[in-house]
Amino acid sequence: MTVEAIDLHTHIVPAEFPAYAGSRGEARWPSMHTVDCDHANVMIAGKSFRTVGNECWEVGRRIAAMDEAGISRQILSPMPELLSYWMAPDDALAMSRHVNGTIAHMVAEAPGRFIGLGMVPLQDPELAARELESLMRDERFRGVEIGTNITGIAIGDARFEPFFAAAESLDAAIFVHALHPSDEGRLIGSPQLKAVVSFPCEVSYAAASMITGGMAERHPRLKIAFSHGGGAFASVLPRLEHGWHRFPALKNGVPRAPREYARGFFYDTLVYDVAMTRFLIETFGKSQLMLGTDFPFDIREHTPRAAVDALGLEAADVALLYAGNARRFLGGAGLPA
Amino acid sequence: MTVEAIDLHTHIVPAEFPAYAGSRGEARWPSMHTVDCDHANVMIAGKSFRTVGNECWEVGRRIAAMDEAGISRQILSPMPELLSYWMAPDDALAMSRHVNGTIAHMVAEAPGRFIGLGMVPLQDPELAARELESLMRDERFRGVEIGTNITGIAIGDARFEPFFAAAESLDAAIFVHALHPSDEGRLIGSPQLKAVVSFPCEVSYAAASMITGGMAERHPRLKIAFSHGGGAFASVLPRLEHGWHRFPALKNGVPRAPREYARGFFYDTLVYDVAMTRFLIETFGKSQLMLGTDFPFDIREHTPRAAVDALGLEAADVALLYAGNARRFLGGAGLPA
Repeated sequence: MTVEAIDLHTHIVPAEFPAYAGSRGEARWPSMHTVDCDHANVMIAGKSFRTVGNECWEVGRRIAAMDEAGISRQILSPMPELLSYWMAPDDALAMSRHVNGTIAHMVAEAPGRFIGLGMVPLQDPELAARELESLMRDERFRGVEIGTNITGIAIGDARFEPFFAAAESLDAAIFVHALHPSDEGRLIGSPQLKAVVSFPCEVSYAAASMITGGMAERHPRLKIAFSHGGGAFASVLPRLEHGWHRFPALKNGVPRAPREYARGFFYDTLVYDVAMTRFLIETFGKSQLMLGTDFPFDIREHTPRAAVDALGLEAADVALLYAGNARRFLGGAGLPA
Repeated sequence: MTVEAIDLHTHIVPAEFPAYAGSRGEARWPSMHTVDCDHANVMIAGKSFRTVGNECWEVGRRIAAMDEAGISRQILSPMPELLSYWMAPDDALAMSRHVNGTIAHMVAEAPGRFIGLGMVPLQDPELAARELESLMRDERFRGVEIGTNITGIAIGDARFEPFFAAAESLDAAIFVHALHPSDEGRLIGSPQLKAVVSFPCEVSYAAASMITGGMAERHPRLKIAFSHGGGAFASVLPRLEHGWHRFPALKNGVPRAPREYARGFFYDTLVYDVAMTRFLIETFGKSQLMLGTDFPFDIREHTPRAAVDALGLEAADVALLYAGNARRFLGGAGLPA
């Protein structure tokens, strides 16, 4: 490949989970049940949550797929269902350390091809802040993935202040991924609609909450990115902007117009549509979008370079979306070329 | 004004409500409490739901505002909180007839300036179908406004089949308006965020449900429009399209690609943003967008003609967005010029 391409949005699953060692009888502690040589079921609460392939944990399989798709480097983050916000904090901490250990090993196998985004038990924001500080001392990590909500509360809530304060001061990259949307009664059809129809709205709620709760104002140097192109957020932002001008209550703790904060956030390009990607560039700026694929899951973008190329941008801007913006988000100075 | 402009998205509130005459002690039956000569509080369950101005029911006040904004004709629909799906069907029917009576009187006062979209008790789909049939015999009505969900169930659910079958066979125009979003824990900030941040997602769920539940496939001649530019739906549609290609289960009852159905729906232009409106045109087609303002509520678009003019379209396409598409949606043949 001729031009560097960083895939910001990829997931991992450990090949195995340790037996639950806590004291609560944690029914949602995951385990792996082998299906065949290449696949396993992630079992949660006695049911298969998802059948996953060994690209989830095998570095060689990933590198082969990356080479085929023209991806120089993958950013590894946990499959979101592993984030474990619904467990007691000490159990979630144990899961975090296991998953982060998997990521650390994978990066160590090919440090020129991978960078890690770990996970922390955000249901205890002080504990999450301390764990983030510890994680950032490991050069294999540049930050963490977090969910759009923590057991139903959007991430912009003031209770998460200690975590975001730590993230800002540590210069950690925070990747916000759709998780457990609020859509009761709203989906008519198959269970896959949750990821397909609800994820975009769930991401929009998270991004909006970072603005309307004042978190973005209080932490102007926080580096935060939203999955799935920010989901529906680009379509919600004009109405939020209009409401901010119209309703004085929306200005409490939010001195600048919402669009200003939104143009300081990062977003991946995972929207499967040229017209929408152009709308994202127009709304958020070409400096804020980063190539992302959802590798290795079924819904992934299989031809991410072609998706960016189809925008018809100038070469310098293509390079921004391919890698330049991701380097800025991740902290480019120390990233090996 | 030189070019006809139809405002599809305007609301009315009756000047008064009759005392509750049912048998249940209906706590959510609304009443009006006068604030001053020009304003009243809509009281629901002992609290002020909203302070509204007399433009809500006074035809003279509306016409003055229409002349100022260059609007030839308003389509009158109920303030959505009056839709009363949460009442027993017979109570909701009584409320529907009172609200529809108000609309009928307003249209009768200036039939060249107004057309009505009434309401029906959709919590009882068979009753709603009969009431729609009765309403469509009154030339002052072209259809009804409905909510995005009926007590939490998205409108694409099969239980609403009798209503949509009747709407299709009667050639009634159905205007779907955001109502009571599913956003528990997702809004961080003032209560106005529900209309500002949640409405777009709620509309997206409703539009998607009409496709994924097969309703759009079963009723190809149904004329249906979605408020707020379809909300976030244009940003969700590419992912739904991708999922439909990817997951066989999403094709059950949905033989055509989601985008084909979406381009048969109508949408208003109420998005407050040139870039987003262009994205809507690109996604849904210039034949599907209709000027809308949310008159007379605070959040309304005050300069709707300028908002359309800013798109830089050719004159023939401006005329489509101003009025031509609305005439098609409403049933143009009988609409006085």
